[in-house]
Amino acid sequence: MEKARIGLIGFGTVGTGVVKVLQENRQVLKDRVGVDIELKAIADLDIKRDRGVSTEGIRLTTDAWEIIRDPEISIVVELIGGYEPAKTFILGAIEEGKGVVTANKALLSTSGRDIFERAREKGVDIAFEASVGGGIPVIKAIKEGLVANRIRNVYGIINGTANYILSSMANEGCEYEKALKEAQEAGYAEADPTFDVEGIDTAHKLAILATIAFGYPVTADDIYTEGITKITSLDIEFAREFGYKIKLLAIAKEEEGTVEVRVHPTMIPINHPLAGVDGVFNAIFLEGDAVGPVMLFGKGAGMMPTASAVVSDIVDLVRNMKCGIRRRVPPLAYMEERRDLKLKGIGEVELPYYLRFTAVDKPGVLSKISGVLGRHDISIASVIQKGRRVGEPVPVVITTHHAPAKALYSALEEIDRLDVVLGKTLSIRIEDTLGG
Amino acid sequence: MEKARIGLIGFGTVGTGVVKVLQENRQVLKDRVGVDIELKAIADLDIKRDRGVSTEGIRLTTDAWEIIRDPEISIVVELIGGYEPAKTFILGAIEEGKGVVTANKALLSTSGRDIFERAREKGVDIAFEASVGGGIPVIKAIKEGLVANRIRNVYGIINGTANYILSSMANEGCEYEKALKEAQEAGYAEADPTFDVEGIDTAHKLAILATIAFGYPVTADDIYTEGITKITSLDIEFAREFGYKIKLLAIAKEEEGTVEVRVHPTMIPINHPLAGVDGVFNAIFLEGDAVGPVMLFGKGAGMMPTASAVVSDIVDLVRNMKCGIRRRVPPLAYMEERRDLKLKGIGEVELPYYLRFTAVDKPGVLSKISGVLGRHDISIASVIQKGRRVGEPVPVVITTHHAPAKALYSALEEIDRLDVVLGKTLSIRIEDTLGG
Repeated sequence: MEKARIGLIGFGTVGTGVVKVLQENRQVLKDRVGVDIELKAIADLDIKRDRGVSTEGIRLTTDAWEIIRDPEISIVVELIGGYEPAKTFILGAIEEGKGVVTANKALLSTSGRDIFERAREKGVDIAFEASVGGGIPVIKAIKEGLVANRIRNVYGIINGTANYILSSMANEGCEYEKALKEAQEAGYAEADPTFDVEGIDTAHKLAILATIAFGYPVTADDIYTEGITKITSLDIEFAREFGYKIKLLAIAKEEEGTVEVRVHPTMIPINHPLAGVDGVFNAIFLEGDAVGPVMLFGKGAGMMPTASAVVSDIVDLVRNMKCGIRRRVPPLAYMEERRDLKLKGIGEVELPYYLRFTAVDKPGVLSKISGVLGRHDISIASVIQKGRRVGEPVPVVITTHHAPAKALYSALEEIDRLDVVLGKTLSIRIEDTLGG
Repeated sequence: MEKARIGLIGFGTVGTGVVKVLQENRQVLKDRVGVDIELKAIADLDIKRDRGVSTEGIRLTTDAWEIIRDPEISIVVELIGGYEPAKTFILGAIEEGKGVVTANKALLSTSGRDIFERAREKGVDIAFEASVGGGIPVIKAIKEGLVANRIRNVYGIINGTANYILSSMANEGCEYEKALKEAQEAGYAEADPTFDVEGIDTAHKLAILATIAFGYPVTADDIYTEGITKITSLDIEFAREFGYKIKLLAIAKEEEGTVEVRVHPTMIPINHPLAGVDGVFNAIFLEGDAVGPVMLFGKGAGMMPTASAVVSDIVDLVRNMKCGIRRRVPPLAYMEERRDLKLKGIGEVELPYYLRFTAVDKPGVLSKISGVLGRHDISIASVIQKGRRVGEPVPVVITTHHAPAKALYSALEEIDRLDVVLGKTLSIRIEDTLGG
């Protein structure tokens, strides 16, 4: 039987998972692919530590270039993450004419362009299923399974940490800080959770999804990004009263020649399939012009789910090699970047909003707030005012009809300067037509 | 730009959708595939009727062989459904060395073996994404996106008609007959609904899913199949009290060298992702050894969703042709049939059961019933007895712990002969560990 030799750079959690899958499922992979996939070498700065997997027959090295330059190795798997030296290693592997598999969303979503350009020039394959949604085969679905469709919208819950925190807040009624602490104790949030809770990781993944969905090169910098740290249990409670759940959504839309990409806490109808995606699970909800709505759901992170995606990518490249071909499917889904599109700024996005004002409890407050909204042409859909305790601040909650972001920002600025308004107003975007 | 010429046999609903997609998305397909996909000819017995799509530039014929024998046509799409002449046409196309795309689950799940064998001998591609789950790219997910995994379990809601009826019964509290009538009026059920409500269509699709998931050739005849016609609103109500929803599930499991395949109404935990799949939507919930649980959700039928799958298959074959290759991925997911597996009979399956007895309302009934269950070593998990109206029959509901099917069948036979039991006992299997 033919053999394909793989080299792995990065022997961390996901790398260990890849070793496990390639070992435990070696036979079933042979049965399906008709090629024996052999992990020949692993490079990591620490090659002493016991990861609980056998490394028998695998060369361990601290020098990634040994792998990159090994003429027997045809596929280099980059799993060290971050920008450098990951980028240099990937470019090095491309120069050597090797296929590349990576899970590095941070790198691809910021300086992916050089990498994809170089891979194209050298005619090598580069695959990155594990960069978005862990084990969920969403990249392949967009590039192949749904290729017949123009993708209209993508809505993703693609950060397990943020979703875990929001789910805890909703299910236990606790505040953000407590939910974060619990997530950290459960190993679902880092000591410094910024990357996850501020939406940065979500934006990285969205850049990749949007790029392949629309053929337009979206980078993380193009994406309006807002995290979940200002959400309170009160907002979750009000959302429920309005029939919504709050999720940190990655949203991408193509409409009339423009691409809209944003990451922010979003109120979605409580009966929408995405609303039921709780805890560390991820889901990507897409709408294609032919297929209509499609949702893919699964574990968005973790050793084995991510390894599943990495190994599936390896198989994809091995199948090409077996047939003596390369680049059967363009890595970014389109043969060429589309030039007929432009980015839509967040200021041009029109949506309904949930607004929570913190106001003094006296007559005329609502009239002042609604007066400002009215002057900015923002029309009110509903109002909730509760908990009258004379002299104390009360939350006044208003949902609006579709409002242009610019008008809304100006209105909120003005409202927050009113002397009856005591704190900064919280606004949460509402997506009530997704999938509709 | 390179051209690929396609011939379509069957200009019904799905065929019309395929024409639409190929026309409307011709440019985006070019941009993604680098090949111009041209629909050259359509064969149908009726080529006069206006389907609301332009057929300009497409040759229309009543003779399918004109398409099969056209040397310019490289891919034949079979969309007439049923057994004959579909099978003859497909085998004819294979003989001519053409790639085949079909949505014909009935044919593939009964006499697919000859077709796949002949395609292998001739070295041609055959694709059938549209045969299961409409536009949901589940076949590709199993064969490629999740290829790294040994698939343990597959649970599918893959018949929209049955799911629509069960959803109506659950949401409106109506009985089966009324829900069926509504489904027929809404165009979601045929005048003769047997195929859908008796689970036959579901079994066809499950045969295909199980075959590619496990590499073992499952045919529809291998599958224990039970429909939804005996379910009453009372059962749905009791299910809810126990924390379950009733769904017509297609279930396939591989465990310890055996393959288990069955279709029947199933009680599943109300908070399971499949429980939220309502109406005509389909979903396939899989468990892989690396990826864990994955669910794919979308429209399981209809003109455009099914056309999405057909055209995505066409693209897959065109991409192979562009590279000058064939059979890059084995059509049935494995290079060879697996011979290390055997089928498990339904009698050997152990599950918890929901049992609804119709009994006279007098003292000692429960003791008689539970006595029989006990003598067959079936242990009771919970009991509900309600609605005491002296002299009238009452439902007695019992859920059991895991029980071997054979023992359960004998016990029910004995119980149904008791003079205190007035009607045939209804049993519904419970799957309470799916995804756990």
